[in-house]
Amino acid sequence: MTGTVVLESSLTPGARLLPVALDAVRLRGGFWEARLDLVRQVTLRQQHDQLEATGRIANFHRAAGAIDGDFNGRYYNDSDVYKWVEAASFSLATHPDPELEHRLESVVSAIASAQQPDGYLNTYFMFDLAEDRWADLTNKHEMYCAGHLIQASIAHHRATGRRTLLDVSIRLADHICTTFGPTSRRGTDGHQEIELAMVELFRETRDRRYLDEAVFLLEMRGQQPPVVGGSPYHQDHLPVREQSEAVGHAVRLTYLACALADVSMETGDMGFGVAAHALWESAFACKAYVTGGLGARWQGEAFGEDYELPNDTAYAETCAAIGGFMWSWRLLIGTGEARFAEAMETALYNGILAGLSLDGEAYFYQNPLSDRGRHRRQPWFGTACCPPNIARLLMSLPGYLVSVSDCALHLHTYASALVDVMVPGAGRVQCAVETAYPWDGTVTIDVLDAPEVPVTLHLRIPSWADGASVAIGAQVSEDVPVGAYCGVTRQFASGDRIVLTLPMGTRLIEAHPRVASNTGRVALMRGPVVHCLEAADHPGFDLSALAIDSRTPWEVRSLAGLPGCPHALVGVGAIRGDAGPTAPLHRTPAPRDWRAAMLTAVPYFAWANRDAGAMAVWLPVMQPD
Amino acid sequence: MTGTVVLESSLTPGARLLPVALDAVRLRGGFWEARLDLVRQVTLRQQHDQLEATGRIANFHRAAGAIDGDFNGRYYNDSDVYKWVEAASFSLATHPDPELEHRLESVVSAIASAQQPDGYLNTYFMFDLAEDRWADLTNKHEMYCAGHLIQASIAHHRATGRRTLLDVSIRLADHICTTFGPTSRRGTDGHQEIELAMVELFRETRDRRYLDEAVFLLEMRGQQPPVVGGSPYHQDHLPVREQSEAVGHAVRLTYLACALADVSMETGDMGFGVAAHALWESAFACKAYVTGGLGARWQGEAFGEDYELPNDTAYAETCAAIGGFMWSWRLLIGTGEARFAEAMETALYNGILAGLSLDGEAYFYQNPLSDRGRHRRQPWFGTACCPPNIARLLMSLPGYLVSVSDCALHLHTYASALVDVMVPGAGRVQCAVETAYPWDGTVTIDVLDAPEVPVTLHLRIPSWADGASVAIGAQVSEDVPVGAYCGVTRQFASGDRIVLTLPMGTRLIEAHPRVASNTGRVALMRGPVVHCLEAADHPGFDLSALAIDSRTPWEVRSLAGLPGCPHALVGVGAIRGDAGPTAPLHRTPAPRDWRAAMLTAVPYFAWANRDAGAMAVWLPVMQPD
Repeated sequence: MTGTVVLESSLTPGARLLPVALDAVRLRGGFWEARLDLVRQVTLRQQHDQLEATGRIANFHRAAGAIDGDFNGRYYNDSDVYKWVEAASFSLATHPDPELEHRLESVVSAIASAQQPDGYLNTYFMFDLAEDRWADLTNKHEMYCAGHLIQASIAHHRATGRRTLLDVSIRLADHICTTFGPTSRRGTDGHQEIELAMVELFRETRDRRYLDEAVFLLEMRGQQPPVVGGSPYHQDHLPVREQSEAVGHAVRLTYLACALADVSMETGDMGFGVAAHALWESAFACKAYVTGGLGARWQGEAFGEDYELPNDTAYAETCAAIGGFMWSWRLLIGTGEARFAEAMETALYNGILAGLSLDGEAYFYQNPLSDRGRHRRQPWFGTACCPPNIARLLMSLPGYLVSVSDCALHLHTYASALVDVMVPGAGRVQCAVETAYPWDGTVTIDVLDAPEVPVTLHLRIPSWADGASVAIGAQVSEDVPVGAYCGVTRQFASGDRIVLTLPMGTRLIEAHPRVASNTGRVALMRGPVVHCLEAADHPGFDLSALAIDSRTPWEVRSLAGLPGCPHALVGVGAIRGDAGPTAPLHRTPAPRDWRAAMLTAVPYFAWANRDAGAMAVWLPVMQPD
Repeated sequence: MTGTVVLESSLTPGARLLPVALDAVRLRGGFWEARLDLVRQVTLRQQHDQLEATGRIANFHRAAGAIDGDFNGRYYNDSDVYKWVEAASFSLATHPDPELEHRLESVVSAIASAQQPDGYLNTYFMFDLAEDRWADLTNKHEMYCAGHLIQASIAHHRATGRRTLLDVSIRLADHICTTFGPTSRRGTDGHQEIELAMVELFRETRDRRYLDEAVFLLEMRGQQPPVVGGSPYHQDHLPVREQSEAVGHAVRLTYLACALADVSMETGDMGFGVAAHALWESAFACKAYVTGGLGARWQGEAFGEDYELPNDTAYAETCAAIGGFMWSWRLLIGTGEARFAEAMETALYNGILAGLSLDGEAYFYQNPLSDRGRHRRQPWFGTACCPPNIARLLMSLPGYLVSVSDCALHLHTYASALVDVMVPGAGRVQCAVETAYPWDGTVTIDVLDAPEVPVTLHLRIPSWADGASVAIGAQVSEDVPVGAYCGVTRQFASGDRIVLTLPMGTRLIEAHPRVASNTGRVALMRGPVVHCLEAADHPGFDLSALAIDSRTPWEVRSLAGLPGCPHALVGVGAIRGDAGPTAPLHRTPAPRDWRAAMLTAVPYFAWANRDAGAMAVWLPVMQPD
């Protein structure tokens, strides 16, 4: 047992990277510590209050027979509670907190009390609805909820050592394995999640039945006749091994792809792995927003066609960005390739982090890339998948920053932290990482303790970091290859200092010409952070009349009023004079009346934290006549 | 009685223009004669066959008790039959056709046979559903269907002189007037149409009750409590006099606005007129496609916000373009201002005409401005409002080309025709109009007969026709003002020839900078005709990689393979070399690898008449690095 890890790949045959426990990466200062403390102190409690206030927890008491009344909300509401349990458990793994633990254990008790004698657990399908259990697999999310319970119970067990919830999960998983399988009923869930949870339950218990069940549930998709409707929306249009285009409901697809990668790594079945990679190429090479957001369409919360990436009507559900992050994580574990870590970082700093307000108490479900000022974060949703999803991801973030492998330590994303890990084949490595990343590209790694054998330190060099250098004492490697890990092998010793320098110039990004919505537009990135223009920084200006001057140098300026977001980019752009409300809708192009205008671009993740107003990521480029 | 007119404004106090009968403008050659003959010979019969095949006509026989069985289709299906009756009647007004007349009279008999003793007529609400009559005004379209019956019956009466259907309409209108009114039940229809029909019934019968009923039905919108749901979708969110932004379902809004204009002109009530104008400004200055299409959103078939005009997801329902045409017609009648005629022409040649295939047998419901090749015309729809709507519009087109007023003749849109009208205060004017418009800008008007008093000939000069000239014999007016009518007053005599020359250069059009989807793009227009690129003309090229070179002169080339569309525009544009499937989705802009490419642009109305493939109206502009 390696502590509270996110994904227990220690015994996974196909894993090239092994996990580190959350408490092996102790955040200290920097971008993340305060942000995660906010989630811990504010967000988790606000979410628990919402779970109470909306009756989601009461549903368990009702199912246990402890209270009367109707079921509250929607049939998938249990899953919100489970994701919060997962988040709270991860938090306790690094930060003891008796008050939070009390809340958590109370919820865990409520969950356990609702389990039925046969192991079934779903508070919606109780009493008069009990006869509808497992009746509508396509739409009713019973295994989806079960999957989240399993994930929560594993996190709870790893973090607290208590089996209460794990035993509940095992009984439910056994019930599912008995009910659905090659020798019993053919079926799977319309909303994927159970598959990846079953794999992790296998990793936790080493009981092979759960892995086999995951394979069975995956193989049930795309059957004739279909078991969950047969539509692309449910990724049920083809057997999973034959799926290569990311289509349908985006969150479903990402969870499916996670399980494909998981199963491939555990079983060595290449068909699943090939599908997980092909789908990733489809999603990330042709259907992903520059923010890492996935899902172009509101209709079906779904992927669009290749290069169909509208800005204002982007769906880009927070959960889909998180699902994409989890998916890329699995491919990173299986391949060690930097592109997957880079996709995770892009999603993390942009498409995911935008889902949470800077005060930690409000959420985006959809994450458009432009807006007229109406899209605002909400304290909760009727369908509240996103809030606890972002909480569980951020509470487990330390587990995603670092991996180990034979005689090697891998740093995927840089954060100020004390890293204290056992490197297989070598021994304990302790080091202090200091960085103002993503605001600054200097990362200092001070070795505090190292074994007396060579260890390779793999430092990820982002693809945008042309000119990056790595210095160890007086030994400097200039212009290290980008989009790859830079491996430094030596027998490290206490007192060694490694300094990584990632050039952090502001970059103009253009989209593939087939992305019709971005013709004549560029996005601004600095490091991994996508920026945007907000009305709040341009009072008196019509945001849609502003344009980038591609010759402009951008400067970093300190920014007040956005907690946790101290920097903005400032540069001279232009404003068109023929963009007012009286200008004709359609007209012969006239010589442009450009005037200089000072532009301020803030990180996309920080948008909509001030007065409501327009926002745009993709900005017109000033063109000469 | 002035013959088969579209809108009988002869006695309308607020009308500045008076109608001419359809047979007063005899199309001869040119763009329109063959096209309307196709509708007459192919489309009307194909539609009648569809009405038969889909049970829409059988529904009337069933309602009459002549046959058994279930109601066929949707509760608003009667309206499709009525619009076809209107179209067929208009056709007979200019072109006797015994076979068509037989079909028409058979349908008219079927309709009449279905009327209930109390005047009610809707074939859906019969038998077991009879008790639901007038129960769900918001959603069930009963008065909407009645409105189309009234319009059909008026056209039938005007064209054939027969009162069969008009008497049916009058009984139904009387039933509605009795059921809904200030002293009876408060109500109106969720889908506007009845209001404008009631006004025309007043014009036909001079029975003031129908005008009063139209006013009542209009005033019922935006009441507290609401009578049809209170939503912007139904334009029920505000009293109609207070509505100034075009919101909600686009077709509903256009029919509403028609009625507002109609009532204002008949009653002199300025509040209605101000609303009709304010809504027009909102719709056409901020929410109209360059094609005259209305309705940006699939969701609710609705107007978007100002400048929200996506190309690929444009809804732009054919019916909405037609409704906009009818609306602009009413404002033209009330004001005589050229901008309304120009809006009609834009819609006619683009957003409306695209709704019908070149072979006359297939239809678009939505009219996007770009497409990947999947959007194709269909022979019919479950909701088949658009096919008979375009038929009735085209069959009445001669009535929209010309108006008269005191001692004046107004030519709104130029078509080769023999015009033979009585000019009030002057006498009979006969002239022959010859033109290859819209392909060519020369319009020759030969006077064949004229009264011995001065008459003013008002020739509309489109806003794009800079440098237009009008010649009468040796007397030439150069550079006449554009976007206005050019009035020529004289005592015309047989043998006089007026030659109007409208410069027809190809124009690049840009959109208002707030139209985010058109940043960096232009559209191509020549005369009133919007052009587009189609994959069919660019084999082997990826349409999305093609760009306009704004320095390019465009040439008119003859085009084979598109019946009724002999011309295309050809010019040298550019293709990007970094637009292939392996190019990165997001990247730092590299120097552009532009190569010259020959581009062929076809009229938008003619798209999707060849092999399926991509189409784009708004095209990227090649930019230097």
